[in-house]
Amino acid sequence: MSDDIRLDLEREARIGIAEAVFAAGKSVDQLARLIAEDPARRRLFTRLAAEQYAALPPDAAARLRYDPLSRTAVMGAIPELTGPARVAIVAAGTSDLPIVAEIEQTLAFNGHPATRFLDCGVAGLWRLLEQQAAIGRHPVVIAVAGMEGALFSVLGGLIGGPLIAVPSSIGYGVADGGRTALFAALTSCSPGITVVNIDNGYGAACAALRVLGVARPEG
Amino acid sequence: MSDDIRLDLEREARIGIAEAVFAAGKSVDQLARLIAEDPARRRLFTRLAAEQYAALPPDAAARLRYDPLSRTAVMGAIPELTGPARVAIVAAGTSDLPIVAEIEQTLAFNGHPATRFLDCGVAGLWRLLEQQAAIGRHPVVIAVAGMEGALFSVLGGLIGGPLIAVPSSIGYGVADGGRTALFAALTSCSPGITVVNIDNGYGAACAALRVLGVARPEG
Amino acid sequence: MSDDIRLDLEREARIGIAEAVFAAGKSVDQLARLIAEDPARRRLFTRLAAEQYAALPPDAAARLRYDPLSRTAVMGAIPELTGPARVAIVAAGTSDLPIVAEIEQTLAFNGHPATRFLDCGVAGLWRLLEQQAAIGRHPVVIAVAGMEGALFSVLGGLIGGPLIAVPSSIGYGVADGGRTALFAALTSCSPGITVVNIDNGYGAACAALRVLGVARPEG
Amino acid sequence: MSDDIRLDLEREARIGIAEAVFAAGKSVDQLARLIAEDPARRRLFTRLAAEQYAALPPDAAARLRYDPLSRTAVMGAIPELTGPARVAIVAAGTSDLPIVAEIEQTLAFNGHPATRFLDCGVAGLWRLLEQQAAIGRHPVVIAVAGMEGALFSVLGGLIGGPLIAVPSSIGYGVADGGRTALFAALTSCSPGITVVNIDNGYGAACAALRVLGVARPEG
Amino acid sequence: MSDDIRLDLEREARIGIAEAVFAAGKSVDQLARLIAEDPARRRLFTRLAAEQYAALPPDAAARLRYDPLSRTAVMGAIPELTGPARVAIVAAGTSDLPIVAEIEQTLAFNGHPATRFLDCGVAGLWRLLEQQAAIGRHPVVIAVAGMEGALFSVLGGLIGGPLIAVPSSIGYGVADGGRTALFAALTSCSPGITVVNIDNGYGAACAALRVLGVARPEG
Amino acid sequence: MSDDIRLDLEREARIGIAEAVFAAGKSVDQLARLIAEDPARRRLFTRLAAEQYAALPPDAAARLRYDPLSRTAVMGAIPELTGPARVAIVAAGTSDLPIVAEIEQTLAFNGHPATRFLDCGVAGLWRLLEQQAAIGRHPVVIAVAGMEGALFSVLGGLIGGPLIAVPSSIGYGVADGGRTALFAALTSCSPGITVVNIDNGYGAACAALRVLGVARPEG
Amino acid sequence: MSDDIRLDLEREARIGIAEAVFAAGKSVDQLARLIAEDPARRRLFTRLAAEQYAALPPDAAARLRYDPLSRTAVMGAIPELTGPARVAIVAAGTSDLPIVAEIEQTLAFNGHPATRFLDCGVAGLWRLLEQQAAIGRHPVVIAVAGMEGALFSVLGGLIGGPLIAVPSSIGYGVADGGRTALFAALTSCSPGITVVNIDNGYGAACAALRVLGVARPEG
Amino acid sequence: MSDDIRLDLEREARIGIAEAVFAAGKSVDQLARLIAEDPARRRLFTRLAAEQYAALPPDAAARLRYDPLSRTAVMGAIPELTGPARVAIVAAGTSDLPIVAEIEQTLAFNGHPATRFLDCGVAGLWRLLEQQAAIGRHPVVIAVAGMEGALFSVLGGLIGGPLIAVPSSIGYGVADGGRTALFAALTSCSPGITVVNIDNGYGAACAALRVLGVARPEG
Repeated sequence: MSDDIRLDLEREARIGIAEAVFAAGKSVDQLARLIAEDPARRRLFTRLAAEQYAALPPDAAARLRYDPLSRTAVMGAIPELTGPARVAIVAAGTSDLPIVAEIEQTLAFNGHPATRFLDCGVAGLWRLLEQQAAIGRHPVVIAVAGMEGALFSVLGGLIGGPLIAVPSSIGYGVADGGRTALFAALTSCSPGITVVNIDNGYGAACAALRVLGVARPEG
Repeated sequence: MSDDIRLDLEREARIGIAEAVFAAGKSVDQLARLIAEDPARRRLFTRLAAEQYAALPPDAAARLRYDPLSRTAVMGAIPELTGPARVAIVAAGTSDLPIVAEIEQTLAFNGHPATRFLDCGVAGLWRLLEQQAAIGRHPVVIAVAGMEGALFSVLGGLIGGPLIAVPSSIGYGVADGGRTALFAALTSCSPGITVVNIDNGYGAACAALRVLGVARPEG
Repeated sequence: MSDDIRLDLEREARIGIAEAVFAAGKSVDQLARLIAEDPARRRLFTRLAAEQYAALPPDAAARLRYDPLSRTAVMGAIPELTGPARVAIVAAGTSDLPIVAEIEQTLAFNGHPATRFLDCGVAGLWRLLEQQAAIGRHPVVIAVAGMEGALFSVLGGLIGGPLIAVPSSIGYGVADGGRTALFAALTSCSPGITVVNIDNGYGAACAALRVLGVARPEG
Repeated sequence: MSDDIRLDLEREARIGIAEAVFAAGKSVDQLARLIAEDPARRRLFTRLAAEQYAALPPDAAARLRYDPLSRTAVMGAIPELTGPARVAIVAAGTSDLPIVAEIEQTLAFNGHPATRFLDCGVAGLWRLLEQQAAIGRHPVVIAVAGMEGALFSVLGGLIGGPLIAVPSSIGYGVADGGRTALFAALTSCSPGITVVNIDNGYGAACAALRVLGVARPEG
Repeated sequence: MSDDIRLDLEREARIGIAEAVFAAGKSVDQLARLIAEDPARRRLFTRLAAEQYAALPPDAAARLRYDPLSRTAVMGAIPELTGPARVAIVAAGTSDLPIVAEIEQTLAFNGHPATRFLDCGVAGLWRLLEQQAAIGRHPVVIAVAGMEGALFSVLGGLIGGPLIAVPSSIGYGVADGGRTALFAALTSCSPGITVVNIDNGYGAACAALRVLGVARPEG
Repeated sequence: MSDDIRLDLEREARIGIAEAVFAAGKSVDQLARLIAEDPARRRLFTRLAAEQYAALPPDAAARLRYDPLSRTAVMGAIPELTGPARVAIVAAGTSDLPIVAEIEQTLAFNGHPATRFLDCGVAGLWRLLEQQAAIGRHPVVIAVAGMEGALFSVLGGLIGGPLIAVPSSIGYGVADGGRTALFAALTSCSPGITVVNIDNGYGAACAALRVLGVARPEG
Repeated sequence: MSDDIRLDLEREARIGIAEAVFAAGKSVDQLARLIAEDPARRRLFTRLAAEQYAALPPDAAARLRYDPLSRTAVMGAIPELTGPARVAIVAAGTSDLPIVAEIEQTLAFNGHPATRFLDCGVAGLWRLLEQQAAIGRHPVVIAVAGMEGALFSVLGGLIGGPLIAVPSSIGYGVADGGRTALFAALTSCSPGITVVNIDNGYGAACAALRVLGVARPEG
Repeated sequence: MSDDIRLDLEREARIGIAEAVFAAGKSVDQLARLIAEDPARRRLFTRLAAEQYAALPPDAAARLRYDPLSRTAVMGAIPELTGPARVAIVAAGTSDLPIVAEIEQTLAFNGHPATRFLDCGVAGLWRLLEQQAAIGRHPVVIAVAGMEGALFSVLGGLIGGPLIAVPSSIGYGVADGGRTALFAALTSCSPGITVVNIDNGYGAACAALRVLGVARPEG
């Protein structure tokens, strides 16, 4: 293992979620060393900028499957996704797609398929209502919305399962980099919505994994 | 006129809205002098606390009709309200009633009846949808909501007339005294919503009066 | 039903959680009318201040079981709590007790017992570590902490099930009324923690109910 | 229609304002697909950066009329603007021109001409006063100002019709990206001013369209 | 001198302004000791609450001339105010009177008369314009305004002498305890306005004294 | 005059300070037109970025004297500076030099020389104390400091003339782009300090000009 | 031990500082139980309001020595304070006395005397400079200041030992409840100053105890 | 010495810490002049960007030893580091390495070796606990953490010596550029932690030097 990086390798055994490598702020050299050692290990990288990926040594890059939309990369095998999706991802707008993709990649890395429901912003309420039944069939729902985040409250009043809100940084002015959507999710008039940090698709997926662990027959 | 108060008495002639007396921060003595001089003038007082009203000299108090819910008082005649209401007031919750009442009092002082639609919070979406047609029949709609203010966006996608949002200070934690509802109204995904200050029912009513002036046949 | 209050009575059928009456900001008169009508209905009141309760007409008060610590009241029968607790409530300090109690009351109203683990602040880490196994036996964990909220991150690294963080307003200076604990929960280095508004014990309990619904055999 | 974009095409029928495409944060690929399908449809694009426009495939770009100052583009016919302008746009400084242009483009796309009144900052009050009568002839006034936004209050005391304030992000230090102008508009001592988000020329134009709908002969 | 208070008694010799006793946060006991020792010294007390004054021992209270509106008290002689006023105090509204009075008391304690111009809010611009010439005859102008503080910018464009802005905490919602007026003063489009802390009438008067020192013939 | 720019050309006659052209946010084309028309007029440009200046047409650029440190440019003659400097500029650190230069350029454009006192940060108090007498000889003092802005308070206790504080944006973390220095200046324990916006050297110079106007014999 | 309070009794053995009871937010009942059990133990209570102390059962109150200025109470013996003071406490103003007293009480509870230096605000610099040598003789210095906190920087440039800054909440307007002093301490131009939370005299004393532990001969 | 830079050269004699050159915001020309004069002097440069270093004249650059990770440079001899390290640097994550390096460089410049303990984030608590004894052997501990900064509290409960917290700007969303970690450090439930500004490794090292001065035998 490299001198200055000590990953929490036992995390998966302890809490059921493997530590992901948060690439933002890490140097290309650090990333390359992480990839080089212990090649048999499966790993998920998040917030890996296209520039970082492009700067990796060819042999390091070759061992990653990089997805530029979600800025994630996977090292090692991706489990086959079978069975019905147990997670619905509902997004307010097209601009939220990178976060949707990060959620999908994280769930897929852990073996879970998901279903997308895009462009469900409440300004055109019918778009959400016509999908309500299909969304409600999934045990866990993750909602992604920026600007005023009204989607969270409307959705929270329509479905009864766990609802995880991901405020996104889409918007300008007093959208405030996602704070307005975040605070809207936290003060929602719909009871029992839980929230993760702005743009934190990875965290929302992990929260869903924690719930799905409970829901497993042997949970 | 008293030494230290110079009301903008020509305001009504100039912009069509009489200056109201904002009572918060005024001493009982100042208020009593304002009431005493020029008894023939009609006047609206806003933010008049029950304590201020109770402390007025009896003859001054006797000249006001005080409404404790809205904390407004009227001096002089109130015009008879006839004809259909041209303003709908839609509120998310019962706690928003004081603001609803301030809007009604201001409109009534200026001769306009209004229709109330209460408890339309989006967590129970049916409450709003079943009133949608009735609301839409009014040329101007004022919406009042605290907490996350999702009502503004849903309503903005359902009706096409002028929609004036009044964020209320209802809520706790990151509701932030009404800022989250305010910012939600400003960043709404529904186009063309306009906004006034937190808890500013008086201002919303004045904005409606400005619009109704335009809509007058001779506008 | 009273004129100006329209509760979302179908909410329980729709999403499995009955609408609670948020008493803060409601007048005693409104509360009394809510209690008077439909006496057969079970109801939970939250944020009911001791002053509000004391001001209720005697017959209205007599129909509530009031808990001053949590500021909640229950109207109607409370289900018998049987079977093992499926929710653990872990709190950092004694000052967080009112929130712990609100969580317990909300869960109990919905038929779920819970286990308390108090004074688990990380400045004395042994207090948490010696309870780790007992906490981990519960399918859902709710953690309550104010000030810097470090408990959330440590606990998130120790257990693998759903972890719902309730930041509390305990602290002074830059504790900022609970914002520092809230933001700490949201930016935690432990993956998959979800968060509710400051001091929102009711919301955390509802979130747990949403998860427990998933975990039911027939979920 | 593309997989991941579902526009609210019925919006115009429902509320009288067509959904515009907010281009910020959309990929060039998404934009190109939007342009390609349904070529007969008229469409307005806002916040389309010069870089995005330049990166479009030639055939897609050829179908847009792009205005770099306002960062808007129009697909399809622009209605002929006839009759007197019913909207006045009053701006404090030259730096506010991009927002003025976005308002004009949005109004023009919907068939409404507007009149500009530029450089009306209150530090040289005569510039505003000499235009007062001309401004007041328009049924609706939109004001644009950054820095301290004093223009809103002065104008609000001079005209009686609907006044929509657009705070702009012009300024530095505690101008705070437009927040000071925004809060100044919201706390104005002139009654009945309504406000949209910082730099939101599109929203102000939509609000004017909502008012002009009321003012239509049958209003 | 008391043990725990060391006033900066040489301040007047050094910078020409005597140290005032800021009474807020001082105990009645501390205040009484300050009054008792060195009875020959003239002293100004600011922010002395009516409750503090009422709680003083009778002999201590007897040595102060207390003004409840400005919450100031003077110990010792007040110089006779002769000659024309060299400072104009212009206020936007009646609610700003306590600050106006604090400015007057501070100037009077230092021998300077001042002229008041009240209710000059820009929503009724004529009120300011009709006083413009009279205001401009004073070498120094202090302006007091809360809410959006538009008065500062309009006044700054009308007069050429030193203009000291005192933002007041009048207002609600995003008036933000005076911050919006403060930031408006700081970002004014009128050049050369200077600013003191919110509600700091004492500081504004001291700033005027510093300027008047320069303007003295022998300056 | 160009269509869309109306400068306040009478400002100098009205308040004694000519309108400066704030170049930030203006297009090169707008700037070029401003330079081209009315070549006999003297003009000061502030916040003119090196990139803007470099992009000007050669004949326009040739008519400006550009100073890259202060980002100012002068068109027309600069008055000869004679007589002793009446303004002292005291700066805490070397990084504040661009602001010092903007103050000097603005004063010089208006005919006033100034004296610089640099590197007077209070961490090495002797640097300020050894200059105290020399600074105090100037009728007006402008102080520039970033980070914690302690210089303002120390200086305010040492000199008795007008002291204008310019908080600078130097610093990181909670220096907060100059807000900490700004708020420190506003809450200073030294009485009578006045303050301008962050980095606003131009405004500080204008404030000094307003004071120097008072101090003139014929003031 | 009571059910719901688990103090970290081993803390003193582990880190050398006994856990203090933070009384704010604790009920009188909880406090009384804490006092009743384990009477032989020495204990320090902080933030114990006079109202809380007055409401204690007489036998519980009798076991505390309560100091109303610092709002602290001690149960059990206070060690005799001998030898020279190793900590200097330097305060800017009289209003900071409660914090000074909390520091003294905490140090005294742990056996350390301290020396006070009051009213050292930098507006009268001589007050600090004449004490400089006496302050510098103490191995550890704690400075307390509100408003703009300039004292921290000046002191940091004069002494070379550990300097712990306690920002106080003294001030109004943008003093912001102590945040301006806090941020000033953190951004000080004097190197190596460390900072504790606003008004946190207890924490500053504990930090001094940590340093004094190092400085002991056997450290 | 250059005209416009006056370093506080006596600082080392006065407080034991030499003034470092804070290079951010200084021009290359200023830096080159500083290096050229007085070549015998040892100097530390902080926040020296790679671009600044690369732009220096070759002879100036040749006299510096530049470390790109910490962005520091040393001019003159570096003392030999002998004896055991007296400072432990504990960091939460790999992304904090630049700050760790700035601490090390500052300590080394002053003759003190340090020991690094990296990747001690509390999500994997074992990583910290297994190093607890080794960390505790150092008289002074500096901890570096971003995001929620939970490391500070856990560490503060485990060790008894001086603990200096350096919040880092690592994180996104409500990590808020390091403010959440900063506020978490300030509101920690572990007593006696002191804090420096965000990312201020230099300041933390200076604070350690102040403590080590006390701990010297002759202290």
